[in-house]
Order: sequence, then structure tokens, then C-alpha cells
Amino acid sequence: MSKTPIFIVKTGGAILEDGQKSQTLLSSFSKVPGNKVLVHGGGRKATSLAEKLGVKAPLVEGRRITDDDMLEVAVMVYGGLMNKQLVAQLQELGSNAVGLTGADGNLIKAHKRAIKAGIDYGWAGDVDKVNSEFLLSLLEGNITPVLASITHDGFGQLLNTNADTIATEVSVALGETHEVHLIFLFEQPGVMRALDDPDSLITHLTPPTYHKLKEAKRIHSGMIPKLDNAFSALEKGVKSVRIGRFDRLEDIVNDQQNFTLISS
Amino acid sequence: MSKTPIFIVKTGGAILEDGQKSQTLLSSFSKVPGNKVLVHGGGRKATSLAEKLGVKAPLVEGRRITDDDMLEVAVMVYGGLMNKQLVAQLQELGSNAVGLTGADGNLIKAHKRAIKAGIDYGWAGDVDKVNSEFLLSLLEGNITPVLASITHDGFGQLLNTNADTIATEVSVALGETHEVHLIFLFEQPGVMRALDDPDSLITHLTPPTYHKLKEAKRIHSGMIPKLDNAFSALEKGVKSVRIGRFDRLEDIVNDQQNFTLISS
Repeated sequence: MSKTPIFIVKTGGAILEDGQKSQTLLSSFSKVPGNKVLVHGGGRKATSLAEKLGVKAPLVEGRRITDDDMLEVAVMVYGGLMNKQLVAQLQELGSNAVGLTGADGNLIKAHKRAIKAGIDYGWAGDVDKVNSEFLLSLLEGNITPVLASITHDGFGQLLNTNADTIATEVSVALGETHEVHLIFLFEQPGVMRALDDPDSLITHLTPPTYHKLKEAKRIHSGMIPKLDNAFSALEKGVKSVRIGRFDRLEDIVNDQQNFTLISS
Repeated sequence: MSKTPIFIVKTGGAILEDGQKSQTLLSSFSKVPGNKVLVHGGGRKATSLAEKLGVKAPLVEGRRITDDDMLEVAVMVYGGLMNKQLVAQLQELGSNAVGLTGADGNLIKAHKRAIKAGIDYGWAGDVDKVNSEFLLSLLEGNITPVLASITHDGFGQLLNTNADTIATEVSVALGETHEVHLIFLFEQPGVMRALDDPDSLITHLTPPTYHKLKEAKRIHSGMIPKLDNAFSALEKGVKSVRIGRFDRLEDIVNDQQNFTLISS
């Protein structure tokens, strides 16, 4: 199997919560040939559920902290509702999907983020280890894993982990033995020189180009952590990182240049 | 593998929602040797979440109907929170658990219950088919499936299905090729002649004994549908059905007569 590429596709919750966009994305995702994994983030559903329940995650230094109640909401919405709805929809589209959190099959072990400068981040989990063997056994059985952004610590505690991080860590782990392409889908066509100019899409970023653009301040600052992360994944053996629009997944998988390709 | 027995253990939600009882049960369950599956029901958490959200499932002829909102609550609580907490706890106990609904791996396909006598039961699912192949592949990989009482119809719709039914249907499906023992755990020692007399435990029920006791009205009426169901599972190839207390799982698995054994 190591010759067959694996596509790890990460999508934000906002796209999945829009019926039309979700349908577009899942329909192309189900057509991606071969080995694929879907990683999904949260979206507004968790926030709206928390509001309805009167759960208010404490804000510490501008960050939302995952307290006990917020963790329950995250597990219910990401690990439950969104995950299972995605799986049911993929089944309808003919993809044999299985929805998983990091606790299932001990897929992603993490630890509670350490208290730093007096800040307790609550039940936020930093990833320690991905169980690639389990993921590969599912892929070999033609199963499509759908991963929710929940991990566990091995001592019975579930943890809330950023979905971008999960997609990246899973890609790096599978990249040790396989050709892995990590795809981030969102509502923009890719990395843009100017967000309001659709013609400013950067179709290919290599480390030297990235450094030049960054120095010239031609890259939107919000994109920088994502890109630093992408280049770090490449250094750790991921074959390519691709950033593009949710309705162009087919082009992105087929390398049709309608997105930003990040490679070394 | 067909010589190794498979134990399908079904437990009610009330036991799992009591920290102490849940710990006792999971600890013995994790020690059951070989192939095992845990099936869990709901419990009060779903009701209390529904109440907090102001969701009130319509009552039709004395039955709660699973409407859109109740289905969301069921998927969040059974398929999300309870299922993932159980998986994380089993991982801690050294059992490599994977939490699944019927949508995952197309495990349990069902259809929306037909409207009968003008009653629309909402998103209640009646089981059509269990994907034994997927379950067996997990068991062969030393994985312990933890099944939530949610199924799907293959057309993108999740459905709410009774956990006893799921345990029974899964047992019957695996019973076609394997020696399957179906264990129902609750807070009583088993089937009792008199609920208030702990010495009235019926340790062995065969079809003739059952008929005699039923005719003599020596069996609690609430137990009759469960027992009819159990005998029907035996007829369909399940090796034994065992009904007993959650803290006696070890005895029950080892056939220590501290429970009700139902066999033909």
C-alpha cells in the first residue's frame, strides 16, 4: 500500500454546517480515489449549544478555556452529532466511513496542556502519539476514517484538540511510511497575496518563496501560523500540503493548480 | 476464531451514569477474556439534556416520539458523550475499545419505523442488517467495539434504536458463524420469582420451564418481553442469553450460576 498516496482532508466546521457547502464537499470527498481521511473542526454548533445550556467557557487572557462543561459540549457536538452526521452522509455517498475520536482504538494520545505563566488551559490536549497502525488497518479495509477533534490521555480523560493540529499530526505519522498529502479546505481559493483580489492566489509555495513573501509582508498575517505549521509538516516527511477552496477538492487532489501547493 | 466465544454485554444507562457502578462494571468487562462487545443504552443524561434545551419529545399514545430535536440529543448523548467516555475509560483499563454507532462502517442498517394505525414513531429505527464482517474484523484485531444505540438508513439519516434490540440483533448476526453469549446486565440478580425476594432468583430457564412459569404467572410481567426476545435469539442461533447483576459479570461469564441462564 505504501505506493498509494493517502489524502488527509481537513475542513472547518462552518463549511460543514452549511447544507449546500457540506454536500458539495462530501460529494467530491467521496470521489477521491484510494486512501483518504476526513478531519473536521467544530463550528458554531458547539457555541450555540453551550449558549443554550448556559455554559460559558472562561476567558483567560483572551483565550477560551475548555472547562468540564465545555468539554462535554465539545464531545457531544464534535465527537457525536457532527461526526455521526458526516459518517451517515458519507455512507449514503458510497464511502464506508467510520467516525472516530482520538480515544477510539487509542488513535491519538495527548496530554493536558501544561500550565504556562499561571494559565491553566483546562482540558486542551497536546498530541503525544498517533496510532498509525490502526488507521492503516482501516484504510487497508477500504474504510474512510472521519476524525473529530477530540483526543484522550490514556487515563480516562477526553481532551479537546485543535483540528488543524490533528490533521497535521496524523499526516506526519502516516508520512513515515506512506506518501501523504495534507489538504486544508476553507472558503478562500488558497493563500492570497491580497484577500480581496481573487487573482492574487499563490499557486506554489516553497520554503524560499515563502521566506521572500513573508519578508516583503505579502502574506496575510493570519495565514502565517498555518503556513509555518505546513512547512514543519513537510520537513517531517509529509509529501505536500495543499490549501484551497472546499468546492475545488477534485482539482486539488488532481494537482490542477487551482489552489496553493506547498512543497519543498 | 469461530471456536472462541464472543460475549455481547448490554448494560442500561442508569448503571453507567453512576460513577461507582460504572467503574465496577467496566473493570470486570475489561477483564472478560477474548472477544467482547459492549452495548449501552441511554439513561437520564439524554432526558436532562433535552430538558435543559427545552426539547420536549411529543408523547403519542403514551410513547415518546423521536422528533428531529430528540434525535439530535440522542446522537449527542449516546453516540457522543456516553460512548466516548466509555471508550476513554476502557482504554485506561487496557481494553482497546472503539466506539461506534450503526452508521460507522455501515454496522447496523435500519429503516424508519412504518406508520402504524396513524402513529408516526419519528426517527425510530427498526434493524434490517448487521455488518458482521466489520465487527469480526475489529474483534480479530483485538479491538473491543462499544456500540451506541443509534443506527442509520443508508440514505444519510441517523435513527434511534433500542439498545436491547441492538444487542440482540448483533448477537444473532454473529451467532451465524460464532458461539455467542448475550448478557443483559441490570441492577437485579437476574429473573426473579419475586422482585423483593433475593432468594427467588431463577438460575436456569429453558423453553419448557419458561412456559410453565409464565402460565403459573410466576414471572414478573415487565420481564416477559425481554424473555420472549431472549428465547427468540436462542432459536436464531445465539448459544446462551444470561441476565444478571452488573457487579457479577465475572461470575456470569464464567457460568457460576449467580444469574439467570437462558438456554434451549
